[in-house]
Amino acid sequence: MIIANENFGKLASSYLFSEIGKRVNEFKNENPDAKIIRMGIGDVTLPLPKACIEAMHKAVDEMGSASTFRGYGPERGYDFLIRKICDYDYRRHGIKIDTDEVFISDGAKSDTGNITDILGHDCIVAVTDPVYPVYVDTNIMAGRKEGIVYLPCTAENNFVPELPVGDVDVIYLCFPNNPTGTTLTHDQLKKFVDYAIEHKSLILFDAAYEAFISSEDVPHSIYEISGAKSVAIEFRSYSKTAGFTGTRCSYTVVPKECIGYGLDGKEYSFNELWNRRQCTKFNGTPYIVQRAAEAIYSESGREQVRQIIDYYKTNATIIRNALISKGYTGVYGGVDSPYVWVKTPEGTDSWGFFDYLLKEKAIVSTPGAGFGSSGEGYIRLTAFNTTENTVEAMNRI
Amino acid sequence: MIIANENFGKLASSYLFSEIGKRVNEFKNENPDAKIIRMGIGDVTLPLPKACIEAMHKAVDEMGSASTFRGYGPERGYDFLIRKICDYDYRRHGIKIDTDEVFISDGAKSDTGNITDILGHDCIVAVTDPVYPVYVDTNIMAGRKEGIVYLPCTAENNFVPELPVGDVDVIYLCFPNNPTGTTLTHDQLKKFVDYAIEHKSLILFDAAYEAFISSEDVPHSIYEISGAKSVAIEFRSYSKTAGFTGTRCSYTVVPKECIGYGLDGKEYSFNELWNRRQCTKFNGTPYIVQRAAEAIYSESGREQVRQIIDYYKTNATIIRNALISKGYTGVYGGVDSPYVWVKTPEGTDSWGFFDYLLKEKAIVSTPGAGFGSSGEGYIRLTAFNTTENTVEAMNRI
Repeated sequence: MIIANENFGKLASSYLFSEIGKRVNEFKNENPDAKIIRMGIGDVTLPLPKACIEAMHKAVDEMGSASTFRGYGPERGYDFLIRKICDYDYRRHGIKIDTDEVFISDGAKSDTGNITDILGHDCIVAVTDPVYPVYVDTNIMAGRKEGIVYLPCTAENNFVPELPVGDVDVIYLCFPNNPTGTTLTHDQLKKFVDYAIEHKSLILFDAAYEAFISSEDVPHSIYEISGAKSVAIEFRSYSKTAGFTGTRCSYTVVPKECIGYGLDGKEYSFNELWNRRQCTKFNGTPYIVQRAAEAIYSESGREQVRQIIDYYKTNATIIRNALISKGYTGVYGGVDSPYVWVKTPEGTDSWGFFDYLLKEKAIVSTPGAGFGSSGEGYIRLTAFNTTENTVEAMNRI
Repeated sequence: MIIANENFGKLASSYLFSEIGKRVNEFKNENPDAKIIRMGIGDVTLPLPKACIEAMHKAVDEMGSASTFRGYGPERGYDFLIRKICDYDYRRHGIKIDTDEVFISDGAKSDTGNITDILGHDCIVAVTDPVYPVYVDTNIMAGRKEGIVYLPCTAENNFVPELPVGDVDVIYLCFPNNPTGTTLTHDQLKKFVDYAIEHKSLILFDAAYEAFISSEDVPHSIYEISGAKSVAIEFRSYSKTAGFTGTRCSYTVVPKECIGYGLDGKEYSFNELWNRRQCTKFNGTPYIVQRAAEAIYSESGREQVRQIIDYYKTNATIIRNALISKGYTGVYGGVDSPYVWVKTPEGTDSWGFFDYLLKEKAIVSTPGAGFGSSGEGYIRLTAFNTTENTVEAMNRI
């Protein structure tokens, strides 16, 4: 008899965005003329950079001719893209990453989800609270529900999680953070790296929002911290950087010195394990998509990406400044991030404030409670909209 | 202390194609002028159909304009593609598959690999021998090494596996088969469906080579067999059909009546489990790639794909007929498949015959032993080459 993976039964219902959709639809039906401004879901709105479009047209033509056609590519990605990553994203920031430490994939969600494949079954896993639900759900699917430790991030600790009490084996960190938009300084992140070195833990560092960093003291990569290569895997994405949410390309860095252990203390190279995992369960990212990603690093591509990021950052600043000037006392994020995290007014909870913004102002937000219990009492607003709509939304509040 | 997934240590080294590469390189160095014909790796050589190229150019342009740009798509795939699949691949063959039973992905390797996520830990898994290594390796990674049952497929049983003895929970079947190129008739496949119904087992049916079927009595889909929807998940791919090995698109059908069980007998819908798995660990196939796949179903696309398949099938026929006419007594496959499976001459084993073909004839094959112990004494030749090269290779033998 085929036994299903019963751990799926332990997952919380994934109702956040469907519940938002339901409430928005109800409002729309009752108010067909309302001009709704969507600041809820974290999806980009600007088109792909011109450099990427040109590179894809060229690559598509290559696929149409026998002499330039590409079949199976390397599972870990083409060298032409990996070399650009090592050079622009690391070497120019003083970090040495070898080409065989980079793995191109179809998305940070896939990689942060699939990474559990290379971890032992009984690991204790720490996540921040609020948290990107993928970290939690994938570990529950893998049978680790009882082994998840939550590290609260609230206004009280300035959204800087405390170090775990006692031993944890895996720590997921996403900074700049989704959903709060807050960051860690070099020294704050160093405490986690030092903890991981001391406890032989593994840090899974999700840097999907790295491109939005402008503050001086905020590390772009965890490998800026001395010793991090032996204890950290880093995830990067082109989704929010260059608008690749529907084009799908990201990469993961697994340094060769990053090791795990057997129950008997034997050492395992996570680089080798992840390579074997990817070669067995993945067949590479589309050639044309990798060419598009490569174009991000061209001179024109870099300039176009800078403009895209600036556009969203301007929106984030508009949201942040408007809320502060209107007397909201708890306004976080929005400086090194496209997300602004807002304390709900006295006497309302996440869903209550969500409903107020929707029904009174025709603005869609995301209730913070959907990201974990410490998200209660907050909402998330995103900068992924036109500046015109962003300004109008703020005028309405 | 971070414990690694020690099951990776139980995997056999993945040396088949690297060992082939090493021997080919040695031969090349010693014989720089030899014109090597590669009939080893199963990668396509013809460019993408024109209809796909046109569709991709159009989709790339859409991604370059704010008014037509697409961000996150549905994790399970766009409706425009799913509707074509339900209509052309199923309804027109008399099979009813609903749109919410189809999941678009980036490859059959990903899906046949990731499907273990929804299976219970202690399943007994049956695979044919020889076998596509992904089925075995992904189950070893998931900790099922001791629970794998091998069903030999050899000339003695005409490459039709016997039913498992006793209870097995999961049965992987790939027909037309990789690597042997052989098929099951309707009645032969029905025996497995009946077994699965009787034992409440699950069949994972890999139909990646379906487009090559021309024999009347060979089912294109396992759902042609009555009752199969309650016990079978089917994997399809555009890789070999339309040359998508480097473009990456496939789909998996999980019927709503296909159920698994809890240890207490509780029923789980595999459709719901797979949907949750994909929504959590996958973010959809690139929009432009799904548009390319949709174009396969247009009138011109269907005609262009037919020509591609005919071209490879002609090559397969050339290989098959040439070997038979030259007195090879064991020549299998190559009728409903791009693969020809050849018994090695008396006194040579797989690697011995591989070396003979390489060194004496400058032809690259794949040693059958690389696919499992029952593959010893065979080599695989593929039709993915130009007809000119195929003819020349056969003249050399």
